[in-house]
Amino acid sequence: MQEILDATTPADWRKLDPANTLYLDLASGRVVIELAPGFAPAHVGNIRTLAKEGYWNGLSINRSQDNFVVQWGDAAEDEKQRKPLGSAQAKLPAEFERASKGVQFSRLPDRDGWAPQVGFADGFPAARDPQADKAWLAHCYGAVGAGRDVAADSSNGTELYVVTGQSPRQLDRNITVVGRVVQGMEYLSVLPRGTGPLGFYEKPEQRTPIKAIRLASEVPENDRVPLELLRTDSTAFTELVEARRNRRDEWYKRPAGHIDLCNVPLPVRTPK
Amino acid sequence: MQEILDATTPADWRKLDPANTLYLDLASGRVVIELAPGFAPAHVGNIRTLAKEGYWNGLSINRSQDNFVVQWGDAAEDEKQRKPLGSAQAKLPAEFERASKGVQFSRLPDRDGWAPQVGFADGFPAARDPQADKAWLAHCYGAVGAGRDVAADSSNGTELYVVTGQSPRQLDRNITVVGRVVQGMEYLSVLPRGTGPLGFYEKPEQRTPIKAIRLASEVPENDRVPLELLRTDSTAFTELVEARRNRRDEWYKRPAGHIDLCNVPLPVRTPK
Repeated sequence: MQEILDATTPADWRKLDPANTLYLDLASGRVVIELAPGFAPAHVGNIRTLAKEGYWNGLSINRSQDNFVVQWGDAAEDEKQRKPLGSAQAKLPAEFERASKGVQFSRLPDRDGWAPQVGFADGFPAARDPQADKAWLAHCYGAVGAGRDVAADSSNGTELYVVTGQSPRQLDRNITVVGRVVQGMEYLSVLPRGTGPLGFYEKPEQRTPIKAIRLASEVPENDRVPLELLRTDSTAFTELVEARRNRRDEWYKRPAGHIDLCNVPLPVRTPK
Repeated sequence: MQEILDATTPADWRKLDPANTLYLDLASGRVVIELAPGFAPAHVGNIRTLAKEGYWNGLSINRSQDNFVVQWGDAAEDEKQRKPLGSAQAKLPAEFERASKGVQFSRLPDRDGWAPQVGFADGFPAARDPQADKAWLAHCYGAVGAGRDVAADSSNGTELYVVTGQSPRQLDRNITVVGRVVQGMEYLSVLPRGTGPLGFYEKPEQRTPIKAIRLASEVPENDRVPLELLRTDSTAFTELVEARRNRRDEWYKRPAGHIDLCNVPLPVRTPK
């Protein structure tokens, strides 16, 4: 893998767009999230508004369920005590999938049982159904989604969760994926598991306070994290997938000849 | 799921065998591991000896790599400073797979790209190749394996790892799986990630001390954890798999019609 990355050219990499990047700042460190406006435009629009108006600042991570997700938002059970949404929309459409037309889809050579086709779109693990002309983002490790109630259109982007366990692909097309964590997963994955139902913390003091969630574009340039991501439509990425499908290093005695969508590494680097 | 579990009879459950159960005691709590002598008899035999002789007591968890594994053993780099193995074997055969004859295999209705068949054997997630007449244990969340060097037969069971991330199924048949965690994953999955290569801790004080690793059969009965596991060859388990393949609760708008081996829950309970 390192050999392939060393042989890349600058054109194989793309910069994170500050207008589509969210910084979740915790006392332990910063989590960098790339938003997916191509798949969830209404949710991403609302999240941008919420971040600009400081909606999450001072709220907390309220749930950590082992081998599943962490989740943050307003912990108040009484609706009247909840933080006002400011200029953000209270109601959004469900954005579980989109038309596959217009999606540049780099297909993985392998199949899985969750979708007719899997691959990468806009740099995100994704799936596609050519017959239904639909594409959607996949729930891999680090996926960020918008929690909802029973009604399909009951998410507004205030309650966000991040996958911290075995990819829960059964959620695909059942909930809106709004982005994915590109750096700082280790600040979320180590959070103590909550002992209440669904991993919610039972005591307020067990929650992890959120210092701030801001759009990178709203943060002074010298406080931004200048990350680059390997383009998933590059030859280097195709080579990397193949190197992972068939591990050639001496340690592996039997190359798998296969890789699952959620096992494909998505390289991130800090430019020199 | 709860309805299915509520409708089970005592015969649907099996007790953990104390001779095949390992307690890993940390300051934070107890991790309960079921060993798999049907698949790794030599390793399990050695692990029993190591546990009986207190090999790991006072050693530490030395590695935590995000979305991959935690690992414990003797952190000493200099071989001369390592803890003596006592009566345990210094060298064991690789036990990556076994003859499938004699394995009671409950096949999952779904397929994946890692193996010709997947299902459950002895209560463990497993795979089978009928043409090659081989069966092996799968690297799902909670799988416990025996770390090795480059040589296939270089593991002796002293260095053990536990999967804490997306199932690394590429390891299947490349390393010996010795068991799986049945309770207490949350004490391992939250350990701070190491910042050295492969997630090893860079400073000794970052390691998590192991109070003791003991066989349940060597622990006084009133200090044992009396767990029961749902039999994977029971009708109730088949029903549970089907309920997970096609989620019927109101929240799910689109049942997946599929489940991956490593997404199947393996229910554990404390008898009343």
